[in-house]
Amino acid sequence: MIKHFNSEEIMAADSFFRRNLINCLSGFKSLNLIGTQDGEGKTNLAPFSQVFHIGANPPMVGILFRPTTVIRHTLDNILNTGVFTLNHVTSKFYQESHWASAKWETSEFEATGIVPEYLNGFKAPFVKESPVRLACSLLETQTLKVNQTILMIGSIDSIYIEEIGLRKDGSLDLNALDTVTVSGLDEYHVGKKLGRLSYAKPQTKPEEI
Amino acid sequence: MIKHFNSEEIMAADSFFRRNLINCLSGFKSLNLIGTQDGEGKTNLAPFSQVFHIGANPPMVGILFRPTTVIRHTLDNILNTGVFTLNHVTSKFYQESHWASAKWETSEFEATGIVPEYLNGFKAPFVKESPVRLACSLLETQTLKVNQTILMIGSIDSIYIEEIGLRKDGSLDLNALDTVTVSGLDEYHVGKKLGRLSYAKPQTKPEEI
Repeated sequence: MIKHFNSEEIMAADSFFRRNLINCLSGFKSLNLIGTQDGEGKTNLAPFSQVFHIGANPPMVGILFRPTTVIRHTLDNILNTGVFTLNHVTSKFYQESHWASAKWETSEFEATGIVPEYLNGFKAPFVKESPVRLACSLLETQTLKVNQTILMIGSIDSIYIEEIGLRKDGSLDLNALDTVTVSGLDEYHVGKKLGRLSYAKPQTKPEEI
Repeated sequence: MIKHFNSEEIMAADSFFRRNLINCLSGFKSLNLIGTQDGEGKTNLAPFSQVFHIGANPPMVGILFRPTTVIRHTLDNILNTGVFTLNHVTSKFYQESHWASAKWETSEFEATGIVPEYLNGFKAPFVKESPVRLACSLLETQTLKVNQTILMIGSIDSIYIEEIGLRKDGSLDLNALDTVTVSGLDEYHVGKKLGRLSYAKPQTKPEEI
């Protein structure tokens, strides 16, 4: 059976119901902990599901921040210091990662027990337990006219990867790395591989590689 | 063991290696087939891993399109007709979905065997087999200065969901829906649920709900 919501029904729905539903519609989302520091060196750590690929040459990521109607430490810290880290979350600490989204007075590292690490003099803290860690710098921000969401673009300056998950062709085995994905606002999953497929050409159906 | 790439090493890497690596860094990505028509009614279907949540009130999605150095039928069709559909991919047709990314002369529906369906007079084709289908309209496009990537924002006008995957609180059970996620350029997975966690508060560690 198929459930249909038209435009009026979507807008007439309970706001909690609508928020859950719309947040799930795009499908599985990436999950990264963003590590930052403020001007006084106080650390901050926050889970984000809106990090995506912008380009490989040069390497860049994009991050969406909801409208700044409340205090956004992560965004403020990046605008102030110009740097941040991205850290994959694994099944071993996805609960602590979720907890980092609470409104803490202290640093989320101290509060949740997630361990910070500093690498090669980079000013923002990495997550010690994370199997994929990126050092990034602010390139630009744009505000979306439609709803004041902020799109931030960052350059990827340095990459740290657990070798067990790095294949010879450069691709990552996210299952070996135990990388977690999120759906909606609060549901966490690991991946169960279906297959890797050959480059798509009209003549023959793609095959597993 | 941890493998480290600094900025110079990333840029000096083989371009195929770099493309695979950078495409994997954000983690798991959403996977949607975008259905469109051109001005003459010729249908087009293409897999996209760059669809994300922009807002729930009103409901909006964002899609990133690589720079328009080659013909982009999906983007052209949306700019011409103003409408498109988003369709989740399942394990039953992820190979056909991947095949739809080949350079076809004919419609990808005919070429791959994926069946189109028209619902409630909407001008763009849906994927009949898909458990989550959205009717969307173009709101605006922006070009990112950093690399000419195009960010398109669309409104979600109508939603069709297999009831088996719709929970009472509005969230979707992506595992029950058999929704597929993609990593890098060519690797497909379903989700294996770890848990759903309570709203994060400082006092107590989040629990499974």
